[in-house]
Formats: sequence, C-alpha cells, structure tokens
Amino acid sequence: MIKNSKTDVRQSITLRRATRADAPGLLHLIVALAEFEKLAPPDAAAQQRLIEDGFGPPPRFESWLAFWRDEPEPAGYAILFETYSSFLARPTLYLEDIFVLPETRGRGLGSALLDQCIRLAQERGCGRMEWTCLDWNTKAQCVYEKLGARRLSEWFLYRLDRANIERLAKSSQNSPSN
Amino acid sequence: MIKNSKTDVRQSITLRRATRADAPGLLHLIVALAEFEKLAPPDAAAQQRLIEDGFGPPPRFESWLAFWRDEPEPAGYAILFETYSSFLARPTLYLEDIFVLPETRGRGLGSALLDQCIRLAQERGCGRMEWTCLDWNTKAQCVYEKLGARRLSEWFLYRLDRANIERLAKSSQNSPSN
Repeated sequence: MIKNSKTDVRQSITLRRATRADAPGLLHLIVALAEFEKLAPPDAAAQQRLIEDGFGPPPRFESWLAFWRDEPEPAGYAILFETYSSFLARPTLYLEDIFVLPETRGRGLGSALLDQCIRLAQERGCGRMEWTCLDWNTKAQCVYEKLGARRLSEWFLYRLDRANIERLAKSSQNSPSN
Repeated sequence: MIKNSKTDVRQSITLRRATRADAPGLLHLIVALAEFEKLAPPDAAAQQRLIEDGFGPPPRFESWLAFWRDEPEPAGYAILFETYSSFLARPTLYLEDIFVLPETRGRGLGSALLDQCIRLAQERGCGRMEWTCLDWNTKAQCVYEKLGARRLSEWFLYRLDRANIERLAKSSQNSPSN
C-alpha cells in the first residue's frame, strides 16, 4: 500500500488554540521568533502584558499552537486578529506572527499552521488574509507566493513609533486650537 | 495683533466620531477615496455591510468625520482600528483610511484628522501607529515623513485574496489528514 506522506506527517501534528496555561510555551516561541528575525524580543514587562492582552477578556489577539507528536511543548505558533477592509467591507484575517522553531522545521508544522489560518479566514467570511515578511526571508516569500499570495509592492507601509506619537500628541495638546 | 493662522483655520474645523446617522456622508467619502485611489469602490451590498460593521455592536472599526465651518456634510474622514504588536506587547493604532475631498484640501482638515488619530493612539497607550500609502501618492508620503513616520521598506506586505482563501480552504478540507 502506497501511503500519502503529507497525510502521515499531518497525523503527527496537533494544532489548538492557546489558553492562559500555555503562556510559558507561547512566550518562549515569541522570543525565539524575535531572535530569528534579529529584532528586540519582548522584555519581562512586555511578556506580562502579552499574557494579559492575549488571554484577558476580551483577548486582543488569538494564538494557535502546533505540537509535534507527544512533545509537551509547542514547536510552532501563529498570532492573528481580524482587521477590516473598508473597500471590500469585509474583515481581513491579519497574521501578526507565524513561526516554527528552527530545529523542528521540514515536518509540516508551518504549513499546518498556515492552512489553519486560511480555514479560519474562510469560516469567518474574511475578504483577505494579510501579513508581512522581512525582505531577507526569501524562503518564506517562496512559500507565500506558491500559495497564491501577492506581494503588495504598490503600497508603502508607514509606522509612527511611540516616541513620535508622544511628541506629536503633546505639541497638538499645547496648540491653542484645542 | 498678529494671529496664528493655524489656530484660525482649526477653529473652522469640527471633528467628531461618526454615528449611524452619518452613514450616507461617510459612504460618500469612502467612494470618493476609492475613486481618488483608482480602486474599486464598495458596491451596494458592501455599503450595507459597511454600515452594519461600522455601527453594529460591537463596531468593527471607528470612523471620524471632519466638517468645514457650518457645512452639513463632512469633507473628510478617517477609519481606524486597533491591531497588536506581539514584540512590543502593545496595541497599534491602524489607520485604514484617511481622506479629504479634493475640493476642500489646503484648509487643514487632513492634518486635523491625523492629529486626532495621533492623540487617540497616545491616549490608548498604543506602541505604534501604522498605515499604508500608494506608491504614486508622493504628496501624502511627504506629509507622513515630515511627521517622523518611517517607511518600512524592509517589510514586504503580502495579501491572499478571497478566491485563493476559498480554493486553499477547500483543498485543505478535502485532505485526508483533517
């Protein structure tokens, strides 16, 4: 009997939504993603806020965990929330993070997480799924483009950081027009 | 007496959050933005969903309107919602749309709307404000860069559209691993 290898692999993977009891495992993965992306990981205070924001009522985001076989600690995760497109007038499923520990790659965990996000987007009537990817992460870009995702190169993404928000909000409050 | 011209102009502008009674004026502005951006505007069904999603409990987004002097119809609007940064562990104020009718530009309406969004981001403890801008809209890009916003050119933005979501969700449901 010829077995379908994708099916075999998927039977070794368990996906489920994280609960507050999963916080240590989730935080471990978030820090590992920051290290992989060479970005500043959440510090102790930020880790505490993540738990409150992710599991407090109402949660500000949803976390999904991927487990390999009977291993007690998750090997991958996705964080997502719903945004909105005013032109489509439909929610967008926004994927903030998707990550699998480097030592457990090639087993289908990332692809199982991505499939789960796509199913959630479909079930919730989302008009789109969106996410960002670092310019040097060409491996992930190939995966996304094979799925049929399009890089929105005609849109520039802008960010105003907290220091600028504070500075501009202060100068606007000091203006005599307010 | 030398008057501050910015103050004078701001006294002619009223900003307030839109309510369901403002739906016709808001929809008019959303369609005008789509025309300005040369993108497909929301059709009749989408316009109905926009009203339900924007004003139904809970609203999926917040709309703010800008009025010039005593004119009854709004001349500009902003649509925003809160997303989340897992690394900062803080909400992000995401600006989905910001627009002023071309015939009422140069009076400070856009800048008043942007200032209001920045104040909301500050009051709500947001770690960032983010938005996108079309590559050809260099006028808006200049405004954003003068504010101190940074173009995140190291991040690629990806989108999976509804047709691909449906196709992939279907093929994933048909897989024997589910």
